[in-house]
Amino acid sequence: MRATYLYGAGDVRVIDVPDPVIQQPTDAVLRVIRSCVCGSDLHPYHGAPVPPGGKPMGHEFIGVVEEIGSEVATVKRGDVVITPFAWSDGTCDFCREGLQTSCRHGGFWGSNGIGGGQAEAVRVPLADGTLVKVPVGEDSELLPSLLTLSDVYGTGYHAAVKGGVSERTAVTVIGDGAVGLLAVLSAKQLGASRIVLMGRHKERTELGVEFGATDVVAERGDEGVAKVRELTGGDGTHVVIDAVGFREAYDQALGIVRPGGVISRVGVPQYADAPASFAGFFVPNITLTGGAAPARAYIERLLPDVLAGKVAPGKVFDQTVTLEDIPAGYRAMHERTALKVLVRP
Amino acid sequence: MRATYLYGAGDVRVIDVPDPVIQQPTDAVLRVIRSCVCGSDLHPYHGAPVPPGGKPMGHEFIGVVEEIGSEVATVKRGDVVITPFAWSDGTCDFCREGLQTSCRHGGFWGSNGIGGGQAEAVRVPLADGTLVKVPVGEDSELLPSLLTLSDVYGTGYHAAVKGGVSERTAVTVIGDGAVGLLAVLSAKQLGASRIVLMGRHKERTELGVEFGATDVVAERGDEGVAKVRELTGGDGTHVVIDAVGFREAYDQALGIVRPGGVISRVGVPQYADAPASFAGFFVPNITLTGGAAPARAYIERLLPDVLAGKVAPGKVFDQTVTLEDIPAGYRAMHERTALKVLVRP
Repeated sequence: MRATYLYGAGDVRVIDVPDPVIQQPTDAVLRVIRSCVCGSDLHPYHGAPVPPGGKPMGHEFIGVVEEIGSEVATVKRGDVVITPFAWSDGTCDFCREGLQTSCRHGGFWGSNGIGGGQAEAVRVPLADGTLVKVPVGEDSELLPSLLTLSDVYGTGYHAAVKGGVSERTAVTVIGDGAVGLLAVLSAKQLGASRIVLMGRHKERTELGVEFGATDVVAERGDEGVAKVRELTGGDGTHVVIDAVGFREAYDQALGIVRPGGVISRVGVPQYADAPASFAGFFVPNITLTGGAAPARAYIERLLPDVLAGKVAPGKVFDQTVTLEDIPAGYRAMHERTALKVLVRP
Repeated sequence: MRATYLYGAGDVRVIDVPDPVIQQPTDAVLRVIRSCVCGSDLHPYHGAPVPPGGKPMGHEFIGVVEEIGSEVATVKRGDVVITPFAWSDGTCDFCREGLQTSCRHGGFWGSNGIGGGQAEAVRVPLADGTLVKVPVGEDSELLPSLLTLSDVYGTGYHAAVKGGVSERTAVTVIGDGAVGLLAVLSAKQLGASRIVLMGRHKERTELGVEFGATDVVAERGDEGVAKVRELTGGDGTHVVIDAVGFREAYDQALGIVRPGGVISRVGVPQYADAPASFAGFFVPNITLTGGAAPARAYIERLLPDVLAGKVAPGKVFDQTVTLEDIPAGYRAMHERTALKVLVRP
């Protein structure tokens, strides 16, 4: 079959690899019907280290079950399933707590002998814990929105949940990428009274407004901080979601967060140490939280509104490529000519 | 009157200053009947900068109301009152949220023209918002325990509350100082199933066990981390309370905290940046929280058990000095021959 591998900065290729087969009785093999390129795929694309033999890419995908191992009970051949970006047993204490990204027997796509989702097919370990069957056909118009539940929507929702968003909180979302926009949608769903979106790509922030942003701030850095403070009577907001991951975004968050408030990070941090000093962090009782989103934990909660068409998180996809054209998809994400790229077989 | 001032490293003196008088209609003047030396008083004592004219010391005290301004309604002459370590109006949004340390009109003792509590008397701004009357006489045996409500017990309780301690959590407390020991007591009150106390002063950890610690770990650093992991099946604990404030304690906390867990800091951080990296912090969804404790927020909640004698947080006081002898009290805290020093008139 064909599968996407990354060999180094900018070097992404679709290559021939052996077809995946059932190896464990708990495995399933999926034929991938939709996948996509994640903002975090750009980190190795921009030069973050990859293993010598290349890295299988793709961790957000929807597939049709082709084969199951003898112990798989919850999905069967022909089912359309969402695969969250980590695979997990669904039974350990972490999974039961809703932290499937720390599953005692789980792992991540594209490592330890497991392929990635930007491919024709994938072997899914621990299929019962990992996969969520959805009641749609493989030609459903809902596929893009359902696909967001594998990572990007769950990540935005995680940011809002960990930030403690509620009817009583104002929220700032830093970053108008797909995660930031879906953090806006999530904050809206959790009842946030005010949602400030910081971003400067007009077509993206317009989608943010459609998702629920009440204010858009194009300024960055100190200017951006001043603008948000001006909008909020000098106080900043209770919750600041960092959907970027660069140190500048963290500094911006620290400048915006209200005393007693929360910085919730879901942008993969590209720095090791975060300012957490006496005057700026400790005295005002700031909390730093967030992390790798256990997307699996949120699928059942978010699915009904997607199936009912009440929300359309799939609007974050503004380009589609075929699997063979995926290098062009990476380029479009890298050059920011695409917000998020959907991949079809 | 006599009052304690710090002029530089190790240079603490009791000097003559003008008697405090009512300046605002919302003021009260207290005669101090008990105060104490805080671990955080040792930071300037060890050389942290002080203002040129010296710094009035003491932020934990109990007093008798001597005079009130014309607008003070909730306390009257002769009342015995607890003063939390920040003064606050009790009416602003932050106070109503229980974050009196960020009160819009409040402040801290020993700065901006307000004296400290290691003195014969103190002017208390915003008396209605700040003071809590207690139904005891000025010779009550409960005074030491009541005094802990002004800071050290509230600080330990804040650590446990912000850490999310409950019946479902195991807790590690780093530091066997008075705050650490009262964090143990607080974790116990909040129902923690297991409380590991890290400290190596036997007489202190014994008090910790009396307060509710289920395990004591004397080792520090990597050895201490390994020991706590060994005690907890390799996982560490859901909550780690840092009651120290040095970077070593933070590193220890990060080594001990379970995925999805919380590091709650109440030791005043003596470092500016905290490791909060991808692998060690973001992927396992660690939360960093805590901060300057709004002791005022917890007094009503903690008072009944103190008055009923169900808890005796005052046991952290193991030495008593008179106000005139307070330099000896600082020395004893500095040399660790005292756990916490009570000051009498």
